[in-house]
Amino acid sequence: MTGSIALVGAGPGAADLLTLRALNRIKAADVIYYDRLIDPQILEFARPDTERVFTGKHVGAHSWPQERICTVIVAAALAGKRVVRLKSGDPGVFGRATEELDAARAHGIEIELVPGVTAASAAAVSLGRALTERGQTDHLVIATGTCKPGDPPPDWAALIRPGTVLALYMAVRAARDMRAALLAAGVPSSLEVQAVSEATTPRERAITTTLAHLPEAMETGRISNPAILFLRWPKQAQPAQILPLVAE
Amino acid sequence: MTGSIALVGAGPGAADLLTLRALNRIKAADVIYYDRLIDPQILEFARPDTERVFTGKHVGAHSWPQERICTVIVAAALAGKRVVRLKSGDPGVFGRATEELDAARAHGIEIELVPGVTAASAAAVSLGRALTERGQTDHLVIATGTCKPGDPPPDWAALIRPGTVLALYMAVRAARDMRAALLAAGVPSSLEVQAVSEATTPRERAITTTLAHLPEAMETGRISNPAILFLRWPKQAQPAQILPLVAE
Repeated sequence: MTGSIALVGAGPGAADLLTLRALNRIKAADVIYYDRLIDPQILEFARPDTERVFTGKHVGAHSWPQERICTVIVAAALAGKRVVRLKSGDPGVFGRATEELDAARAHGIEIELVPGVTAASAAAVSLGRALTERGQTDHLVIATGTCKPGDPPPDWAALIRPGTVLALYMAVRAARDMRAALLAAGVPSSLEVQAVSEATTPRERAITTTLAHLPEAMETGRISNPAILFLRWPKQAQPAQILPLVAE
Repeated sequence: MTGSIALVGAGPGAADLLTLRALNRIKAADVIYYDRLIDPQILEFARPDTERVFTGKHVGAHSWPQERICTVIVAAALAGKRVVRLKSGDPGVFGRATEELDAARAHGIEIELVPGVTAASAAAVSLGRALTERGQTDHLVIATGTCKPGDPPPDWAALIRPGTVLALYMAVRAARDMRAALLAAGVPSSLEVQAVSEATTPRERAITTTLAHLPEAMETGRISNPAILFLRWPKQAQPAQILPLVAE
């Protein structure tokens, strides 16, 4: 009998930010294929006889290519296993879920998405601040600093305007290029930027700075991946809030 | 002794999409102030002696003004109670959390944000599809069709371009205006639109249509609030996918 696959969001860091549905899928799993950034406590929710397979990706180390992950989860399900593919955050946000959904469906395997709390929501909690602030920001843009190899870098300036809170995933290395692109496009250098690394874990660190000082403040504050950067551009920005009062 | 306040995300609909942390806060609560759209099963997780207060807002009915909510949660915490303010989805996304954070802090009350799965993640699960699709969409825009009274309507065309998946909250009533604005701005009429109402509940309904036919398809498919609309504009859109092959 064919098994099944669940693409499960493990949430943003802390084990207790898992959903009840994710917990149930983990408890029912015969095998769990898990990414890096998964709290070891989450794997302990599984039955003792559940197989646990680490698919990478440690920073700087080799990780499984996506094709290999697709092949092994499909093979395990075809062998009758209840497969959990455990991803940090929400599997639908920069989670390569499409490839795994397509692979399962091509083999007639039942596949389910189990949503999770995405990293931006957790980083906002770490800052004690809402993502959107009524009257100030009316849309949230979630973008990544790391595109598909061969794709051009993001068009940073097109992502932000008055009313935007921009949450950037995997953007630590792109901070300098982003600053240059935004300043060249006329985005105020005094724009407020906050960065949180390893949100909701004991290793959490956060900084508050301006666009002008972003890369340096990240270095001083030891903000490294996994991190979320927030850029906030209020709708009714007053000159004192947004525009420098003196030339820089 | 002063109590505390937790602004807790109840998740997008189904009770099992609550996080473990949210469950723990609900179990520890002395009083729960809850919004509409909260699954009654979630309130049953509370202790029998926990007070439950409904703050609205039923569609079309009177609900508590935000100031009243702020006043009562602060008063309950000052009276020594562990207060849970239960909101659907993630409290940081269009959740009026800022007002409640500010009110608590102005009174020196400890206040915590407990993140939740936001409605867009759940609606994507209902569609069996990821929010972002590598190589197709590289940023997710979460916006609302309902602005602060007195504010101008959203600048729809500024929210979407090739590479965007746009998730719209509370936008059912704005669908006609949005279509007109987007078509006038040159957004392809064949753009794919999906809408999901009451995602992850037994009453869930979904449609797939194009921008050209959106309001009519929503009517036929009985898509009403609470609903999420997704507009997807792939990066490398081929003419056959996006541009009409014949004049309409």
